Amino acid sequence: MEVDQVLHMNGGMGDTSYARNSLLQRKVISMTKPIYEEAITNLYCNTLPTSLAIADLGCSSGPNTLFAVSELIKVVQTLCQRLGHQGPEYQVFLNDLPGNDFNSIFKSLSGFQEELNKQVGPRIGPCFFTGVPGSFYGRLFPSNSLHFVHSSYSLMWLSQVPEGLEENKWNIYMASASPPSVIKAYHDQFQKDFSLFLKCRSEEVRAGGRMVLTILGRKSEDPCSKECCYIWELLAMALKEMVLEGLIDEEKLDSFNIPQYTPSPMEVKTQVEKEGSFDIDHLEVSEVNWDAYADELNLKDAFKDGGYNVAKCMRAVAEPLLVNHFGEAIIDEVFSRYKIIVTDHMEKERTQFVNVIVSLTKGRTAVDLD
Amino acid sequence: MEVDQVLHMNGGMGDTSYARNSLLQRKVISMTKPIYEEAITNLYCNTLPTSLAIADLGCSSGPNTLFAVSELIKVVQTLCQRLGHQGPEYQVFLNDLPGNDFNSIFKSLSGFQEELNKQVGPRIGPCFFTGVPGSFYGRLFPSNSLHFVHSSYSLMWLSQVPEGLEENKWNIYMASASPPSVIKAYHDQFQKDFSLFLKCRSEEVRAGGRMVLTILGRKSEDPCSKECCYIWELLAMALKEMVLEGLIDEEKLDSFNIPQYTPSPMEVKTQVEKEGSFDIDHLEVSEVNWDAYADELNLKDAFKDGGYNVAKCMRAVAEPLLVNHFGEAIIDEVFSRYKIIVTDHMEKERTQFVNVIVSLTKGRTAVDLD
Repeated sequence: MEVDQVLHMNGGMGDTSYARNSLLQRKVISMTKPIYEEAITNLYCNTLPTSLAIADLGCSSGPNTLFAVSELIKVVQTLCQRLGHQGPEYQVFLNDLPGNDFNSIFKSLSGFQEELNKQVGPRIGPCFFTGVPGSFYGRLFPSNSLHFVHSSYSLMWLSQVPEGLEENKWNIYMASASPPSVIKAYHDQFQKDFSLFLKCRSEEVRAGGRMVLTILGRKSEDPCSKECCYIWELLAMALKEMVLEGLIDEEKLDSFNIPQYTPSPMEVKTQVEKEGSFDIDHLEVSEVNWDAYADELNLKDAFKDGGYNVAKCMRAVAEPLLVNHFGEAIIDEVFSRYKIIVTDHMEKERTQFVNVIVSLTKGRTAVDLD
Repeated sequence: MEVDQVLHMNGGMGDTSYARNSLLQRKVISMTKPIYEEAITNLYCNTLPTSLAIADLGCSSGPNTLFAVSELIKVVQTLCQRLGHQGPEYQVFLNDLPGNDFNSIFKSLSGFQEELNKQVGPRIGPCFFTGVPGSFYGRLFPSNSLHFVHSSYSLMWLSQVPEGLEENKWNIYMASASPPSVIKAYHDQFQKDFSLFLKCRSEEVRAGGRMVLTILGRKSEDPCSKECCYIWELLAMALKEMVLEGLIDEEKLDSFNIPQYTPSPMEVKTQVEKEGSFDIDHLEVSEVNWDAYADELNLKDAFKDGGYNVAKCMRAVAEPLLVNHFGEAIIDEVFSRYKIIVTDHMEKERTQFVNVIVSLTKGRTAVDLD
């Protein structure tokens, strides 16, 4: 599988689209707001740039695509107002893999811009939006061109399915039953990918520039800890049932593995320090319920079924990968079984995703960014 | 009609797509190569930039989208090789209205990059491609950020259908039968739009930067000269036939007008001088046969029917505008009639589109672009 070509969230605006099933990811962006707010405030106040280049890496398509960016712009505009400055020119780079639905994003921009102007007022600087297709495990931007990088729920995706997973039969990710060679293969791929990510960004981010990265991860040092792997084990269960019923070839299941790695804060810290271009300002973990609607008040009936919510969220994320490997025919059935399995599990255990959030500064010494 | 939202070439890769029916536009880009070659050569040799920001405005989607850009990059790389320089970093901005099929462009980029590397060799600098959705009759890029702007067969499109065309009944563009008020309305809109275009670009292009613009136009000073208007008059004939047969409401036809203006070289010159930011290095006209396949050797049978070729080319360009106004149901019938009318006309007269090409430099005084 060419992850570059295959991986993307479900496009469009339909019932199974990412656009309509990504409240969870939105919540996570909201939760990390204090961290990126502090980072952009420091950046702005230290450098007072007249032009501000912001990149969102793994922006997907839907209401989340411009959510962090709009929050960042609002913070800067509030600062400008307080300081009596004219707002800077904003150049916003929206990055994702080429399979992402950029057309939907682009069609939504004029409405977004109108809304932003309404919220921020007339003193907002001009905003120039661009789409940047490509893998962030490679260079995407000219040297020293970016002031601020944001990325949320993207860096757990690997550049490829690790090599050497032949022994991971009946699993689709690291699982309690995976042999050590599988865990090592996943971990090695993460190390390689994340250090390449840091190297590429170090060339693109200006001295003094900031990055705030939120990664789906884990608290435990055990890479196949339940907190990060179980969501995929449950999907494997649905697939296994279908193998046993002859609906999916066993060999098809054996050769399918999710190109993801959910790191611990310590693993993130280690790679950042090893690569050496960025300093860590802040590193923390937080948790969010699998069911994004769990704590919502005045919930419509349609969203009261937690298992259904989780299955739809995971479908919007994983469907293109599954379709690429298993074909389209099985998808409805897989997620209908998955919903039942997830519901059952959620009744028995506390189910939380773990977010690892790191705020970074490129080379503290340089002062003038503009 | 909101031209911003409606105007785009037919997307995708299907039989009626612009991608598969745009040989004519490709030929025009080829024909103008000596002009943009000279412009980029001068730019590079005068400034030796380490980073080169190139924008293609109205890039559409299909094989033409990256054609001019790849030619520009090849010219620079040849210069670098001759001078023993490392190639600069290229930042390529592909602009079109938000309805353009950017997804198709983005999916084609990795293949394009591979092909370019093969042609140019390993010394090519890194190329960063971005999509920029929006109207070029407004700001699209940060101040002083562009080195080179290319645009081909885009600037004849107006930002809106001119106001005051109520008297243009039974016509869909300026026509021999249009009253003077209609001609004036079109001309005024062109003046307003083109001068706004120049003003916006003057803010975005660095001092010493270049622009090469190819505009579908005319030689004559008469705005409703046959050389530029007849292609639309023939389409109006097809629509009129259908009105007379009760297939289209008369009032629908009366209220439809193409948001286009095909200027003369003198009109282009006048606006450039009036706006004042750019100097004209070169201004010329050329011609290209309506039937892009007319001079092709070893032509497949499928392309030997000139009227068919022209009708398909015009359909790929005008279909979204027509669908927006008349609905989808009539489209096949309109273009089937149009093909017959065009064929008939092509047998009687020499049919050529006129290209107005202008090469511009922003403020000659500044020297250092880098």
